[in-house]
Amino acid sequence: NVNKGSMNGAGNLMDFLDEPFPDVSTYEDFHTIDWLREKSRDTDRHRKITSKSKESLWELIKSLLDAWSGWVVMLLIGLLSGTLAGVIDLAVDWMTDLKEGVCLSAFWYSHEQCCWTSNETTFDDRDKCPQWQKWAELMTGHAEGAGAYVLNYFLYILWALLFSFLAVSLVRVFAPYACGSGIPEIKTILSGFIIRGYLGKWTLLIKTVTLVLAVSSGLSLGKEGPLVHVACCCGNLFCSLFSKYSKNEGKRREVLSAAAAAGVSVAFGAPIGGVLFSLEEVSYYFPLKTLWRSFFAALVAAFTLRSINPFGNSRLVLFYVEYHTPWKTTQLGKYPVLEVIAVTGITALLAYPNPYTRRSTSELISELFNDCGALESSQLCDYVNNPNMSRPVDDIPDRPAGPGVYNALWQLTLALIFKIVITIFTFGMKIPSGLFIPSMAVGAIAGRIVGIAVEQMAYHHHDWIIFKNWCRPGADCVTPGLYAMVGAAACLGGVTRMTVSLVVIMFELTGGLEYIVPLMAAAVTSKWVADAFGKEGIYESHILLNGYPYLDVRDEFTHRTLATDVMRPRRNDPPLAVLTQDSTTVEDVETLIKDTDYNGFPVVVSRESERLIGFVQRRDLTLAIKNARQKQDGVVSSSVVYFTEDAPQLPASNPQPLKLRRILNLSPFTVTDHTPMETVVDIFRKLGLRQCLVTRSGRLLGIITKKDVLRHMAQMMNQDPESIMFN
Amino acid sequence: NVNKGSMNGAGNLMDFLDEPFPDVSTYEDFHTIDWLREKSRDTDRHRKITSKSKESLWELIKSLLDAWSGWVVMLLIGLLSGTLAGVIDLAVDWMTDLKEGVCLSAFWYSHEQCCWTSNETTFDDRDKCPQWQKWAELMTGHAEGAGAYVLNYFLYILWALLFSFLAVSLVRVFAPYACGSGIPEIKTILSGFIIRGYLGKWTLLIKTVTLVLAVSSGLSLGKEGPLVHVACCCGNLFCSLFSKYSKNEGKRREVLSAAAAAGVSVAFGAPIGGVLFSLEEVSYYFPLKTLWRSFFAALVAAFTLRSINPFGNSRLVLFYVEYHTPWKTTQLGKYPVLEVIAVTGITALLAYPNPYTRRSTSELISELFNDCGALESSQLCDYVNNPNMSRPVDDIPDRPAGPGVYNALWQLTLALIFKIVITIFTFGMKIPSGLFIPSMAVGAIAGRIVGIAVEQMAYHHHDWIIFKNWCRPGADCVTPGLYAMVGAAACLGGVTRMTVSLVVIMFELTGGLEYIVPLMAAAVTSKWVADAFGKEGIYESHILLNGYPYLDVRDEFTHRTLATDVMRPRRNDPPLAVLTQDSTTVEDVETLIKDTDYNGFPVVVSRESERLIGFVQRRDLTLAIKNARQKQDGVVSSSVVYFTEDAPQLPASNPQPLKLRRILNLSPFTVTDHTPMETVVDIFRKLGLRQCLVTRSGRLLGIITKKDVLRHMAQMMNQDPESIMFN
Repeated sequence: NVNKGSMNGAGNLMDFLDEPFPDVSTYEDFHTIDWLREKSRDTDRHRKITSKSKESLWELIKSLLDAWSGWVVMLLIGLLSGTLAGVIDLAVDWMTDLKEGVCLSAFWYSHEQCCWTSNETTFDDRDKCPQWQKWAELMTGHAEGAGAYVLNYFLYILWALLFSFLAVSLVRVFAPYACGSGIPEIKTILSGFIIRGYLGKWTLLIKTVTLVLAVSSGLSLGKEGPLVHVACCCGNLFCSLFSKYSKNEGKRREVLSAAAAAGVSVAFGAPIGGVLFSLEEVSYYFPLKTLWRSFFAALVAAFTLRSINPFGNSRLVLFYVEYHTPWKTTQLGKYPVLEVIAVTGITALLAYPNPYTRRSTSELISELFNDCGALESSQLCDYVNNPNMSRPVDDIPDRPAGPGVYNALWQLTLALIFKIVITIFTFGMKIPSGLFIPSMAVGAIAGRIVGIAVEQMAYHHHDWIIFKNWCRPGADCVTPGLYAMVGAAACLGGVTRMTVSLVVIMFELTGGLEYIVPLMAAAVTSKWVADAFGKEGIYESHILLNGYPYLDVRDEFTHRTLATDVMRPRRNDPPLAVLTQDSTTVEDVETLIKDTDYNGFPVVVSRESERLIGFVQRRDLTLAIKNARQKQDGVVSSSVVYFTEDAPQLPASNPQPLKLRRILNLSPFTVTDHTPMETVVDIFRKLGLRQCLVTRSGRLLGIITKKDVLRHMAQMMNQDPESIMFN
Repeated sequence: NVNKGSMNGAGNLMDFLDEPFPDVSTYEDFHTIDWLREKSRDTDRHRKITSKSKESLWELIKSLLDAWSGWVVMLLIGLLSGTLAGVIDLAVDWMTDLKEGVCLSAFWYSHEQCCWTSNETTFDDRDKCPQWQKWAELMTGHAEGAGAYVLNYFLYILWALLFSFLAVSLVRVFAPYACGSGIPEIKTILSGFIIRGYLGKWTLLIKTVTLVLAVSSGLSLGKEGPLVHVACCCGNLFCSLFSKYSKNEGKRREVLSAAAAAGVSVAFGAPIGGVLFSLEEVSYYFPLKTLWRSFFAALVAAFTLRSINPFGNSRLVLFYVEYHTPWKTTQLGKYPVLEVIAVTGITALLAYPNPYTRRSTSELISELFNDCGALESSQLCDYVNNPNMSRPVDDIPDRPAGPGVYNALWQLTLALIFKIVITIFTFGMKIPSGLFIPSMAVGAIAGRIVGIAVEQMAYHHHDWIIFKNWCRPGADCVTPGLYAMVGAAACLGGVTRMTVSLVVIMFELTGGLEYIVPLMAAAVTSKWVADAFGKEGIYESHILLNGYPYLDVRDEFTHRTLATDVMRPRRNDPPLAVLTQDSTTVEDVETLIKDTDYNGFPVVVSRESERLIGFVQRRDLTLAIKNARQKQDGVVSSSVVYFTEDAPQLPASNPQPLKLRRILNLSPFTVTDHTPMETVVDIFRKLGLRQCLVTRSGRLLGIITKKDVLRHMAQMMNQDPESIMFN
């Protein structure tokens, strides 16, 4: 019975291997997983539970618990990542203010909380209250004057250096994987790569603590990327509660995709944007089931954060994030602690004097996005009001700019240059950091400057054709805040190449549903322009830079090469290492394992016919022989290994045969040597293969691994770089 | 040279076949396409253009035009579908009002436009102006009284019958494919099925016209589904402008996915929701490139609609849509015209007396969503105001309901029953119709009723535990409008099983970004509850009902069957029809083609060895033999067909051999007989195969087609229906 025999192949293999060595993981560190195999393992597990569930009520309950465990994990991820994000927000808020002063009534209050709880302040004076004292005031008693300014300046730098030193030291000593944003690595892990410890408990703890320190130090970095990493660590943590997820690398990645969505959800307070970000940017294998679970995790996370977060409905406050740029080569790179200290020192030194860089970047962005009401006290809103104007105060037509606006323009220009330069240097330091907020800040500053310029042009030149049809006299036809918002979206879109998730995040952030059309136009334009310079966004560049084996779904492979050009062995290589189904001895197999480092070996009928019958994993082979030598009597070096269904009856004098059909994969993936490489690339991407065998007329010719595919793609890309431009 | 020989296989085959018979399409009607083949054809075309582009400036320009043609098509789709949607909106508006009366100043004005242009009306009286006359007033001169009511009632029914009669007749005579919403069929087409004429010009024209008639007739149906169909017809129309899309069924489907997004974008005025709807609900193969293009098409469409649409920023007005339910079996189904007339008559008869069903469904939903301001004149807002209350008029605490509210509650309950029943009957009639709006209306009515009930409970029982912590006395703690919104989302979610796109559409519709958490919770809950009754949403049920060969990506296949259990030939079948590479004669081939109706035939080395060398399409074989018989001297019935690289030199007395290697596909997709069916299903889904060959140790055993896979899945599902419940 063919059917029965084959079932033993897949089902029992697992029992056979998993039980004697329960703690040995199936994949090595820095190897890629086999999606098809993981999927079929999960189906076996699922089938076993379903059939058992009919036996007793307890098994039925267990099967129901198993079916709901996915939702439970999502709930836990949402709760923990929301809580962590809330705590981080509060801590960052307090420590950022600590650089400038302290609250006398309760030192653990931030500036805002300190003055909120004070009864002595009016609404206009809400930033100034007696309980909050700057360091100079506290130490010398003088709040104003050059001396106080210098002392405050000095202490600001000192605190910044302290925070960043602590952050870089903790990362260096306890969890080197906690540095950076983590998104490129998570992308790579989700595509099926194993990086042990990257999502471990230590990484979670250290990343959470150092993220607070790094953001509070005032460096030009943000917390969105790192929060995605933190949420994925939470996901990994909760996976270990359920064997369904901890023992299956494929299922684990479904949970991690959803955790990434929860991370963005809490980073921006944008649950839908988070789901789309996970779908568009981070995830590799994203079935609809994962979409629904991500949605649920993002919802719980956002809800938890909202319950903890004291900022309530002011969404923009949540919005404090950045990310890395990858083209930095400094000598300082060799001394990570020194590098961080130096960049922090320079950042603090240059940032303090300019009001637009001293404050936190999210506050800056928030101010740039907002328009000037009549009561606004900001420098940016210092317009000359026409005293003869009889209109209500809230309905402000365009007005000439006052000296404050011109002053702000200069400061913004300096801040723009500072932000661009310092972000490039901050990027890639050995502390948790993100690039979202600096990108948005750069875009928002540029947008606001352009917005004010156009506004003033429109005021002074009402008769120009472009303004004529567009601005009726006396009406407000240019909104500088909208320019800032569009600028931020465009800059972020250019860096990350997001489109749909970008727009959704922007309008979840700002609530500006009416601006959806300009935001979409900005996203499309920035994507076109950025793509003209190169197809990769920041995450792909980072992955390329680190040399991770990531098979990007976006590049289209359009070359005319065939499987036969890529497979190994090449023309002058030694022949492929294969096993035969009934003529290899245990010793031959052991020699083959010792001499080669392949992950597995094809099994053929005989060396003459070369007809392929299956594929055997190196690890399974090693374990099976070790096991047989220990436990099975009569298995010696000269024993013949049989992969056939029945081993022949041998005379007693011959050594005992070793039957290994149960570890043989009877359905290895094959393509013919004439298969175009574009099809092979497609198969590797969509099915998540690890390797694929190449045959012609049923004869085995060679093997193609994922690394062979990546190497070939890189080779072809270098030969003919322009071919991707027209795509 | 292996490499060169194989290139002839794929590249030249197209030249060879496409040129002599340019008008013959590659696929038959009601057949499925081979995605891998379409993709490799496009890559060939692309390569040819890229290599030509280096030859001259003109070729370079042509290649650039080709590269941008995708964006151009998107632009055109956006413009045309936005324009059509705008025209449909205006026409529906006018014709809906025509059932009640006419504008004297200009008969082509709707009621609203008529009174807008009138100077004699105040804001409060904006619905009543002398220019707008009801039919009874115009004919008899009396606006009030029983006679006028009956005459208006009668004319209302008459107009409704006229519109629906016209609609069903036009559909029946000119374009039978224009009936229904079209989404199930579009889903099936996008999954790779061919339905000729379904997206043709006639369908476009007739669907647009009859959609206006059907919606205006007041039937319980909407225009969202049909608008998606209309947009897809536009997409298909513009595909024919570019050979890149018109000649490649795979590329054409990329355009159609984007067109579906544009359709939802204009149906709801929700561009982002449209992209997500296309991704989550409609599309099958949705690469990131399509995501960006969909985004662009949706943007252009929304922008065009906004430029045309007179309703400006009131998004809810755009929101007028419905869809079909599939469990209807009436005897009337055999007489489509009679059925439409009967249902229209009943609808008009029952709808007129109830103010909540007489008006258009979108207006009803809009009223249900909105909360009661102090100035609101609606019956639903007839609360008893406390004269002692000193608070500002806009800030209304909870109040006891007045008689109007109780009256409205009764009418809403009747409307709810009416809507549920009539929508089930309306569904599936032979006119364009959608199910979105009726679903939302049912949900919104139920939600509002519950909302009012809870509000009144909270007012009368402040001391109950659930209200105690939640409602401070005097504050407004229950918002019936929000209940209606959540109810609409939940009902729509239950019908379609949308999640992310549902929430995005809901908040693009209502601008209610603050309500994102309740909306998400409603979407998740309704999905869970609905899934407990069965996994399929309305579209999948419809596809199943019509028996389309749709391989759903959502069902997980978890049975233990193997490829060998599904492949043909079965145990007692005749052997597989194969060709041999060098021993079949032309006559044999012709007999085989005549006797079987397979789409293609595997080619093996010889009947003894059964080693597979390739696969040849039936159509290619027929054409090649016909061609050879006509043009090639010496090819007769006894000529031997050679699929080998070189035909042997035969003596002149033998008939001329026929070399057909160029039409042989040298890389057919194979799996082994031991491959689990779940893997096979995965391969069919992800790679979009049409058929797959089954081998063992290089020998050909059988073939599995997409239909075999679907049949097997249906069989397994019926055997063990509960297995999908625990998934």
